[in-house]
Amino acid sequence: MTPALSGQKPVDVPARTGVVIVGGGPSGLLLSQLLHLAGVDNVVLERRSRAYVLSRIRAGVLEQGTVDLLRKAGVGARMDREGLVHDGVEIAFHDRRLRIDLADLTGGRTVMVYGQTEVTADLYAARDAMGGTVLHEAEDVALHDLEGTQPFVTFRLGETVHRIDCDFVAGCDGFHGVSRQSIPADRLRQFEMVYPFGWLGLLADVPPVHEELIYAGHERGFALCSMRSPTRSRYYVQCGLDERVEDWSDDRFWEALAAHLPADIAARLVTGPSIEKSIAPLRSFVAEPMRFGRLFLAGDAAHIVPPTGAKGLNLAASDIHYLSEALIAHYRQGDEGGLAAYSDRALARVWKAERFSWWMTTTLHRFPDKGEFGARMQQAEFDYLASSRAAQTTLAENYVGLPY
Amino acid sequence: MTPALSGQKPVDVPARTGVVIVGGGPSGLLLSQLLHLAGVDNVVLERRSRAYVLSRIRAGVLEQGTVDLLRKAGVGARMDREGLVHDGVEIAFHDRRLRIDLADLTGGRTVMVYGQTEVTADLYAARDAMGGTVLHEAEDVALHDLEGTQPFVTFRLGETVHRIDCDFVAGCDGFHGVSRQSIPADRLRQFEMVYPFGWLGLLADVPPVHEELIYAGHERGFALCSMRSPTRSRYYVQCGLDERVEDWSDDRFWEALAAHLPADIAARLVTGPSIEKSIAPLRSFVAEPMRFGRLFLAGDAAHIVPPTGAKGLNLAASDIHYLSEALIAHYRQGDEGGLAAYSDRALARVWKAERFSWWMTTTLHRFPDKGEFGARMQQAEFDYLASSRAAQTTLAENYVGLPY
Repeated sequence: MTPALSGQKPVDVPARTGVVIVGGGPSGLLLSQLLHLAGVDNVVLERRSRAYVLSRIRAGVLEQGTVDLLRKAGVGARMDREGLVHDGVEIAFHDRRLRIDLADLTGGRTVMVYGQTEVTADLYAARDAMGGTVLHEAEDVALHDLEGTQPFVTFRLGETVHRIDCDFVAGCDGFHGVSRQSIPADRLRQFEMVYPFGWLGLLADVPPVHEELIYAGHERGFALCSMRSPTRSRYYVQCGLDERVEDWSDDRFWEALAAHLPADIAARLVTGPSIEKSIAPLRSFVAEPMRFGRLFLAGDAAHIVPPTGAKGLNLAASDIHYLSEALIAHYRQGDEGGLAAYSDRALARVWKAERFSWWMTTTLHRFPDKGEFGARMQQAEFDYLASSRAAQTTLAENYVGLPY
Repeated sequence: MTPALSGQKPVDVPARTGVVIVGGGPSGLLLSQLLHLAGVDNVVLERRSRAYVLSRIRAGVLEQGTVDLLRKAGVGARMDREGLVHDGVEIAFHDRRLRIDLADLTGGRTVMVYGQTEVTADLYAARDAMGGTVLHEAEDVALHDLEGTQPFVTFRLGETVHRIDCDFVAGCDGFHGVSRQSIPADRLRQFEMVYPFGWLGLLADVPPVHEELIYAGHERGFALCSMRSPTRSRYYVQCGLDERVEDWSDDRFWEALAAHLPADIAARLVTGPSIEKSIAPLRSFVAEPMRFGRLFLAGDAAHIVPPTGAKGLNLAASDIHYLSEALIAHYRQGDEGGLAAYSDRALARVWKAERFSWWMTTTLHRFPDKGEFGARMQQAEFDYLASSRAAQTTLAENYVGLPY
């Protein structure tokens, strides 16, 4: 599709910029915004249309650090108006419920419920307002001379092939993007765990069953009660990898959800027609290092967490924090320390979030192959959590986000 | 072997007692001692000779609660003289070391390093001094009418078959004992996990490499530096289940141990000839409930933990705490509440200790089938532990022992 056909206005493609950012999701846009604010020239390339990017339903829990970073990027106003500050979260196990008092356990830290779609929309608005260059429907993106001093990126807009010379490339194009794939296999170590189940998610304009999120472990499987606003709910139930979304009527979903929740919560569920319904697999993945020459990976391009614990977007944000500071220090002070340290710094936090997401996932999901002893270890984990302030603190400090 | 041949003096076997305690290891002897001090008649039956029981090498780390209970049982004097109070423990991972300050993290709680063999010897001395009845080499022990009101136990001493009528039977005879096997299969749920490795242990009269215990995770496998006294060390290395102790010369053991430890620790190892060397498998096991009619299970008869974290003897002690209080309340006040609640109370603590032992084991051992992602989760667990006071507190509060 040509830009004209897609409704995109013809754009001037610069021949040269400081940083080419591959990927126009929240990581790429946030990096673009932070660099622009610091006077660092950059161009964002996105393979999809803006409408497509904005239609993707994703996570909705922002750590305090992510909230602070969005404010710093100048995109916090609507979030601060419309986002829901949560100072607690519930863990349920069978019919028992346990509130984790995030604020009390972490010295006042909280999370913000605000959908990734909204974050992305706010970032687009800010990029537009500042006249940032975001090129959509950029096809056949290829990265060149990444190990040299003069890298460049080629891509096609409609019928025209373009080239942008740059100092650095930021790979913010997700798990399936071209950036990580541009690194020779022998220069990357990849670690992966694929879980034997997925999440079936449903979005509906019904009031949330509870004012805080509920992560529920159950012998039938995991369920999550989440929300986007006081009138829009997001629910999930664990499902088999062989399930097909077309086999799940709304009624069947609501019935399954109720069966996975503590009875008192299930009794209060308000059901309604779905706006969206989808199945997502669960995966843990890390590629290291997160740098190859003048290419820096950030977010899902370098690592994936299972969604339990809502770390995906937040990890992307902490990557962008480290990367933006490093690039700005390079351009402002000629200080290369941050760029040299980027991969190690980001990975130290990534692995801890991977650990937490893996722990939340393994503790609350049904693993048929772990047998009855495994099920009892999950029960014991919940019982210990319910009895120990230290254990609750470990959950809380990870959930609100470990320090940058 | 007859009592005469074994050197045991002929004993008077009473026709009736309050509690028949099956098993003359530390659990059975401790229960016997506590009941006797409270005026509750009891008889201990042990299948082996006293010399055999006293030659078994076992764990050597006592929780504060176990220490308190031994003092209450009047057997704390030598322990308080010769035992080593440890207010910290080390966790190592590859070449990094982390001291867990038990006392600081738990409001002053500590552990006592004092061998199970010594505990057993002190209990025997106390039983002898009070004239307690402990019948050794009791063969063919059988429990009868456990669900009725008048249970009895039969057994053979040499050529003579005896019968003791009683009110209750305490099953303290370990994992392979007759007590749990006397419960019909359909009245018991059993949970088990067998780990794909064992521990090769060596005891030697050499000074310990470090004043505190070191639990060491390493890519080669787990190792533990422990001790019995300032001049006697107990070391372990993870080994395959197909290893045979006769294939392990002392030299080979010391070499393997050094290769599993941080270099600075390995460099300080003092080696010497072994006094004992053995291989033990690692198992997690729980049977529930811990009561069947008038039979109460305690210690290894009901549950096994892998030795990582030293919970085996300590769990037996907490079982005996609950059971002795319950029996004494029955005899003194006719209060049946403690007996009715025994299984649930004991199991609540058992499962938490199972969880901790399983966590320590899975975090620090090499599991070839968990792959590289699993190895990185172990690394992340260590890194998180090193960075979080809350995480260190969870380790410390479990290591010194959760409250009774």
